[in-house]
Order: sequence, then structure tokens, then C-alpha cells
Amino acid sequence: MTADSYESAEKVMDQVEVLLCWRFPATLFTAAPRLRWVQSMGAGVEDILAAPELPRDITITRVVDQFGGPIAEYVFAELLARVRRLEALREAQRRRGWIDIESETLGGKTIGVAGLGSIGKEIVRKAQAFDMKVHGLSRTLEAASLVDQHFTPGSWPAFVSGLDFLVLTLPLTRETEGVVDLDILKAMPRQALLVNVGRGRLVVEPDLILALTTGEIAGAILDVFSEEPLPPDNSLWQLPGVTVTPHISGPSTVEGVGAFFLRNLERYLRGHGLMGIADRHRGY
Amino acid sequence: MTADSYESAEKVMDQVEVLLCWRFPATLFTAAPRLRWVQSMGAGVEDILAAPELPRDITITRVVDQFGGPIAEYVFAELLARVRRLEALREAQRRRGWIDIESETLGGKTIGVAGLGSIGKEIVRKAQAFDMKVHGLSRTLEAASLVDQHFTPGSWPAFVSGLDFLVLTLPLTRETEGVVDLDILKAMPRQALLVNVGRGRLVVEPDLILALTTGEIAGAILDVFSEEPLPPDNSLWQLPGVTVTPHISGPSTVEGVGAFFLRNLERYLRGHGLMGIADRHRGY
Repeated sequence: MTADSYESAEKVMDQVEVLLCWRFPATLFTAAPRLRWVQSMGAGVEDILAAPELPRDITITRVVDQFGGPIAEYVFAELLARVRRLEALREAQRRRGWIDIESETLGGKTIGVAGLGSIGKEIVRKAQAFDMKVHGLSRTLEAASLVDQHFTPGSWPAFVSGLDFLVLTLPLTRETEGVVDLDILKAMPRQALLVNVGRGRLVVEPDLILALTTGEIAGAILDVFSEEPLPPDNSLWQLPGVTVTPHISGPSTVEGVGAFFLRNLERYLRGHGLMGIADRHRGY
Repeated sequence: MTADSYESAEKVMDQVEVLLCWRFPATLFTAAPRLRWVQSMGAGVEDILAAPELPRDITITRVVDQFGGPIAEYVFAELLARVRRLEALREAQRRRGWIDIESETLGGKTIGVAGLGSIGKEIVRKAQAFDMKVHGLSRTLEAASLVDQHFTPGSWPAFVSGLDFLVLTLPLTRETEGVVDLDILKAMPRQALLVNVGRGRLVVEPDLILALTTGEIAGAILDVFSEEPLPPDNSLWQLPGVTVTPHISGPSTVEGVGAFFLRNLERYLRGHGLMGIADRHRGY
């Protein structure tokens, strides 16, 4: 069964055992006595996990291992555009100006990747191909050997203090919400850039705006925000040094998500363990 | 001794044994009876090698292994900007528009690298980190194992026929001058892009303009041109789908070139073989 509105979904919820959904109102879960498994179309399931209506015996799965490539491409597209000064080059072309535009290289710079799941690992891999120094922060030591220097969540200030670029790929949980606040932004070098491809609420947005305005950091590349769509009157739209994109870093293609769901459905029907099971306690 | 003009150089040429130079008039070589070694500040030495005044017993060296990283960054900065549609995203930001901008990924696309020297190899390495299919063309089989499919100069049409992106890193020689002509451009898929970070005269520029105008290829990213600076009335400046940059892909930094020269000078003084010796017959 497919539903293209919440109203049409509501009418059939009493028959649903498996639900493939995106931004689905958790209130409808209470009208689904047969519901056993909810597959989100995205990588983040914080809304579903936070719903008090969610019965404890329902399995929630998120899409994993689909977003690493595209999100890492987003990060390097934007970082390369900055350091290689593509906007100045385009502007020179418009004026037919053959002028010397000094640029830097990513090679030799230090990138810090907060979150070393499938997305973070792809960013680490590409950063290494660009001969960057790679620092990483994660809850467990599972991926510590992939990076030049590893930090755990107790060491945020030390982690960010040596970075040219801080990239957030963390899930949104009780532990990570607002983890990047004014103290952390002040601990970053003043020439550093923040890149957020995780969730907007990882960052205390007013603190970020303050840090950008006062020059605590040089700029930000933001694909996610506390409120989405980013309201037209939010000052991030036009702060110098800030790139805003409309949550497009990891496109949930119909083909990609569909293929993931079908593989998981086959596992479900055969009674095998599902891929991407979210842990309510962990929060993702 | 240093010279900041051809006139001041001319006055001391009779004492010079070792010459570090860039765009140096070969006529001055005839006034240098003691000249034994000329170190170019760049990667290309086609001008020096072509000078009839160049005595046969003078060694010419070019800078090698310095440009791979920066030039590969240029290639991926520009390719990512295209496929990830950064200009459309910047335009949306200026209008504060939270709109869905469909983009593609580099991952899965096929890149062809013509020339597998130190620059080409760096492009291959980064392309593999982006999960691209990598085809390569080179004179020898030395680097054939690095790419998914290897071609030699006799197979240009087959090489280009399956590409999304054709990147030229070749040196300019009698064999490579004008190698990308209308026939080769027509053999490329119509959605393909040409990227030239080698030398402008690898491409027959009027043929390229024709191919772009008639839609034989989708676009071009050009850092080098037959005539540099690119004249203001050249139509490449404003053809749709064409990116023009002022020969900045591989910045010859004073530090980088200086360090290379000093390492080579030490080898010269000790009588060791020099790095980057150009072969007159080969042409680079």
C-alpha cells in the first residue's frame, strides 16, 4: 500500500506491518496495532525515536552506507571551491580578466571529522587522497585507526583546536545536541571553517552566528539547520564567509533508498537481522 | 647572480654555468659559452627545447613531481563544482531560496586521463578515491596497471568514446600538438566535458570552439590556451559550458620550485644525475 498524504496513510495504518516512510507523524503509530518495523527513508531517525507514541517493540531502521559517497563529495566540492577560490575565478572570467588569483591547496591542511560512521569514514578516505592530516572524534575506538589522531567526546576542545576544517557528521542525540557551542567555536583556530552535514541542532545556532560575526572562526558551510527550510530572515543566509545549501548533501534517491529497503525487506521476510537498526538508548 | 630583466641577464650570460629561468629567450643561450645546465621553473620546457640556438651539450631540466597535487585539486574542484551544481546553489542562496537542486555525483562516472606522468597519476589516485572508473592513455605501458582501462596514442577515438570527462595532462611535443581535433571531439559522448591542464596547443582551438558551439561535447574546463593570456576577444571566454581560468592549476610557488632547484643543484655539484632531465627527441 502507498500513501501520498497523512490522511490517506491514517486510513490504512491498522493493516500495516512494515512501514517505509519519511517525516512521518509518530501519532499515527498508535493507530497501527500490527506495526512491527519502520524503515526510514533517511539516515537520521531522531524524530521517530523521540516520539513518545512509539511502542517499544517496533524495530526502527535507518538507511546506512548510502550517503557516504554523495555527502563526502559535497564536503570536498565546497572545501575545494573555498581554498581554490572558484568564485573569484568565475568573477574574473565574467570580466575576461587574465589575473593572478592566489589560492591554497587542501593538501597539508588538517581536517577534523566528528562522527566516524559510514559518512565520516568516506570523508576520511577522500581527505587522505588529498594528502590532508585527518583527525577524528567518535564515541567508540572502532574507527580510531583510520585517522592520524583520534579523540573521544570528552576531548572536544583539544579536538577542534588544531583544525583547519571541522566537519560534523554526527547523529542528533541527547549527547550531541548543541555540542558545538560558543566555547567550542572559540577553541577553533580563527582561520578555521565549520562544515555541518549532520544535523542543524548539533550546533547552537545563535552561538555560531556570534562566532562568525566576531571572527572567532572564518566561515561555515552549512547544509543543515535548526529549522528547515532555513527561514528567509535568518542571518546565516548572508553572513560573509557562510555557504548555505538546502539540505542536499546526501540525496535520498528513489533508486538508492528503494534498493536498500528491498534488501532489508528480503531479510525481514527470511527472518534475518535487519540492516541499520536504530538503538533507542544510543539515539541513532 | 640574479637578473630581473632580459637586459640585465644578457650582461652576465658569459659567466653563467647554471641557469634557473622561466620564459627565457633562447637567443641568450648563444651568449653563454660556459652554460652547462638550464633548470626551468615550470613543468613544461617545449619553448627551450624548440629553440634552434640551444647547444646540444646543455642539459635541460624541468620541475617534476611538484605539480601533481595542486593540479589534481584544480581538476576535482572544477569537476565537483559542475556535477554538484555549486553555481546554482550559490544563486539560490543569494535569493534566500530553499529549493531542490538536483545534482549528480562523480562516483560511478568515467574519467579518462591522457598522460600518466606525475600529474596524471595524482588525478588517477584522486579519481579512484571518488569511486570513478578510470581510463588512461599514455605512450608507454609503465602506468597501465594503475587504471581500469589503458590506451596508447594509436587508440585515441576508442579512448575518448566512453568518457564522461577527458583530462589532458600531456606535454606538448610534435606528437601531441593538436592531438585533440574535431574528429576526437566528435568521438566523445555529447554529454562529456573536456578538461585541459596540459598545454593549450594539445587542442585545435577552432575545432574545440566548433564542437562546443554545435553541441558535440557539453563543455570544457580550460586552464591553458594556444595564446596566453587568452585574448579578450576569444569566444571561449563566454561560450556556454566553458570555464576559463588563467593558467593557475599548478602554482609554481617560490618555495616549491626553489626547494626543487636546490636539491638538483646539490646533485649537480656532487656530480650525481639530475632530476627532471628533458629529452630533446621525446620533446619533454
